[in-house]
Amino acid sequence: MEELYEKVKDLCAEAKAAAPALARASGETRNGVLSAFAALLRKDAEKILSANGKDMEAARRSGLSAAMQDRLLLTPGRLEEIARAMEALVMQDDPIGLGTVQTRPNGMEIKHIRVPLGVVGVIFESRPNVSADIAGLCIKSGNAAVLRGGKEAIRSNTAIVETVRQALSMYGLPQTCVSLLPFTDRTGAAALMEMRGLIDVLIPRGGKGLIQNVVENAKVPVIETGAGNCHLYIHADADADMAISLAVNGKTSRPSVCNAIETILIHREAAPALLPRLQEELERRGVELRCCPVTLRYIQGKAAAEADWATEYDDLIVAVKVVDSIEEAVAHINRYSTGHSEAIVTRDLGAASYFTEAVDSACVYVNASTRFTDGGCFGLGAEVGIATQKLHARGPLGVGALTTEKYIISGSGQIRT
Amino acid sequence: MEELYEKVKDLCAEAKAAAPALARASGETRNGVLSAFAALLRKDAEKILSANGKDMEAARRSGLSAAMQDRLLLTPGRLEEIARAMEALVMQDDPIGLGTVQTRPNGMEIKHIRVPLGVVGVIFESRPNVSADIAGLCIKSGNAAVLRGGKEAIRSNTAIVETVRQALSMYGLPQTCVSLLPFTDRTGAAALMEMRGLIDVLIPRGGKGLIQNVVENAKVPVIETGAGNCHLYIHADADADMAISLAVNGKTSRPSVCNAIETILIHREAAPALLPRLQEELERRGVELRCCPVTLRYIQGKAAAEADWATEYDDLIVAVKVVDSIEEAVAHINRYSTGHSEAIVTRDLGAASYFTEAVDSACVYVNASTRFTDGGCFGLGAEVGIATQKLHARGPLGVGALTTEKYIISGSGQIRT
Repeated sequence: MEELYEKVKDLCAEAKAAAPALARASGETRNGVLSAFAALLRKDAEKILSANGKDMEAARRSGLSAAMQDRLLLTPGRLEEIARAMEALVMQDDPIGLGTVQTRPNGMEIKHIRVPLGVVGVIFESRPNVSADIAGLCIKSGNAAVLRGGKEAIRSNTAIVETVRQALSMYGLPQTCVSLLPFTDRTGAAALMEMRGLIDVLIPRGGKGLIQNVVENAKVPVIETGAGNCHLYIHADADADMAISLAVNGKTSRPSVCNAIETILIHREAAPALLPRLQEELERRGVELRCCPVTLRYIQGKAAAEADWATEYDDLIVAVKVVDSIEEAVAHINRYSTGHSEAIVTRDLGAASYFTEAVDSACVYVNASTRFTDGGCFGLGAEVGIATQKLHARGPLGVGALTTEKYIISGSGQIRT
Repeated sequence: MEELYEKVKDLCAEAKAAAPALARASGETRNGVLSAFAALLRKDAEKILSANGKDMEAARRSGLSAAMQDRLLLTPGRLEEIARAMEALVMQDDPIGLGTVQTRPNGMEIKHIRVPLGVVGVIFESRPNVSADIAGLCIKSGNAAVLRGGKEAIRSNTAIVETVRQALSMYGLPQTCVSLLPFTDRTGAAALMEMRGLIDVLIPRGGKGLIQNVVENAKVPVIETGAGNCHLYIHADADADMAISLAVNGKTSRPSVCNAIETILIHREAAPALLPRLQEELERRGVELRCCPVTLRYIQGKAAAEADWATEYDDLIVAVKVVDSIEEAVAHINRYSTGHSEAIVTRDLGAASYFTEAVDSACVYVNASTRFTDGGCFGLGAEVGIATQKLHARGPLGVGALTTEKYIISGSGQIRT
């Protein structure tokens, strides 16, 4: 333990020492590293795929589920997608640099600029593309990165990080700007959470357990992402077809992701006609409904328990509740939501406006699917995650979320009297 | 204890219930409340000054120091200053409202807006003007506020909060938008730190002990402000008169504040000529010098211990160290600084540019006094504090730091395929 902690500390100290070189690198240099990284991912594809093959073999031997194996798998096509994602980052605006400049009455010039955070720590699970994504986002924003990936992907992640380090070297930047912890268990993550003064921000990317653990235990600042107990509220006057389409899309198009809906709230006036159709459309796509007592007056099904309202199923399950009013819907959402994404279906502008103002979540939709909460869909480019906190940044995080601000004040000897 | 905790929780729950009314109020209404508050501070001056008189009497009886008594004192002039500060807030731009709007290729409209955080908790010490300042900043930014002031000022704070509550009533807003905890000891503050889900952000305003306690123990998000171990670095080529003027201003114009300098670093080439003059100018203003061994070759004085480099004296004491190079100065600052404000004195543009890039602090000065780090001096209007963290907001915080962002997405049934 002690030895592991010291090794993690050494890696983080190396990253901190390397960070200023990357922070001072021009946008052109940082983009050059990203282009070189993309080129090397193609050139060294065989080596990376061979490392991934060994991860896959170990995964099969250890009986990893088919779904998890699919997450772990790299193919030439997936590797090409990663390379293209790096090239897309090159095309994005530089998040670093001058914001505003003002001259004060006493002649001092105050520049307000965006600068890198310094060292970004990321704890993630099995997908090996995350190591490339995060390394790319950090290089774009001038931050050093310390990565702790899952044990299933250790060989793939190692090969990818070797590749990005080569790209850094080609531009005269320290390889230690991007490091992968050799420790893939909880103790590696736990050590990273202690690195106050060496890690400027820690981002957990993965399931609820991981995020909760980091938020509760980290002694370094954390950007909390990804918890999504999202709601669809169907107002009294909702268009029935639209309501069903949004419910089906929100729940079934990709149930494992954070922007999928977990609870459907229906105004009591819409319930009698809508619930049977909703049940039919959802059940025929394999969705299990967990229903409030009023819902069970209109359809047969499993009863919801109190815990269902607070559950992010990430699965083909949805909780259903009939409400007496839009106010009750908003109160329910503000009580149980994780503050990620919520939607209303209505034709009434007043109801839409009340809902969007009163719901205290990062993204509030009127007549559109919560599934759109995503950096790409919002035009923000590559995504750091979806933040559910209120401080620093909220909602889909672009690369700008990996920056902070700085004031540079130039004078000619001004003193304050 | 249990009872106190429940009472704090009730007050916070009332604030959370009241917050949406304030969040939905127009900028005109919020400004109206601030104008009414200013008018009532003048109208009820006698009542407020009488409450303050009782606080002062108790302070004298309990033997509070003269300096602390002066902090506690309200006079007609000081009350007028508070009223004017509220009127100045009215004139500031509204931090709430539309940022950007875009229409996506699928026809969805995405609005990115600034919204209030919700409920802001503030823990502060003896100055009663802080209760008015914070209440005003929160009203301007549409936030409910829960205040925990110091016990010395309880009567003054109560009178001021009663006044702002009257102003809220005049505009049909719940009085519970601003509350003062009746508990002025550590247990009241400790309870406030536990209010996850009721308090959206907690801001400690006061001394180091208070801030450290809140940062380490709060379970709610914290904006960390005010810790200032600030440095002045005198480069080899510095103009000697300017260097001495900035050192004297930085240390002696108001030694108790966070933007005062605590350590002076001097390049070895400048040391022999400058140190004797610096000592003379500082000592004649009552400043004690704590010197590194090299400094003691040039002047006589007290030796600095390792702890001195990390100390924010907030007093007429300054640590002095001779460095071999600008790189050593930067390394010393990045090691010991709290990340608040640092300055270089130099004629060399290259040195200035290296220093401002490499020093990892919120505000970095070239040939100007660190004493300017202040919302007013930066043109930001009334100040929430000086943030030394990197996430959310850094440096002097305007009222915008009390907001978060929200996306409102309007469609016509769009689903994600």
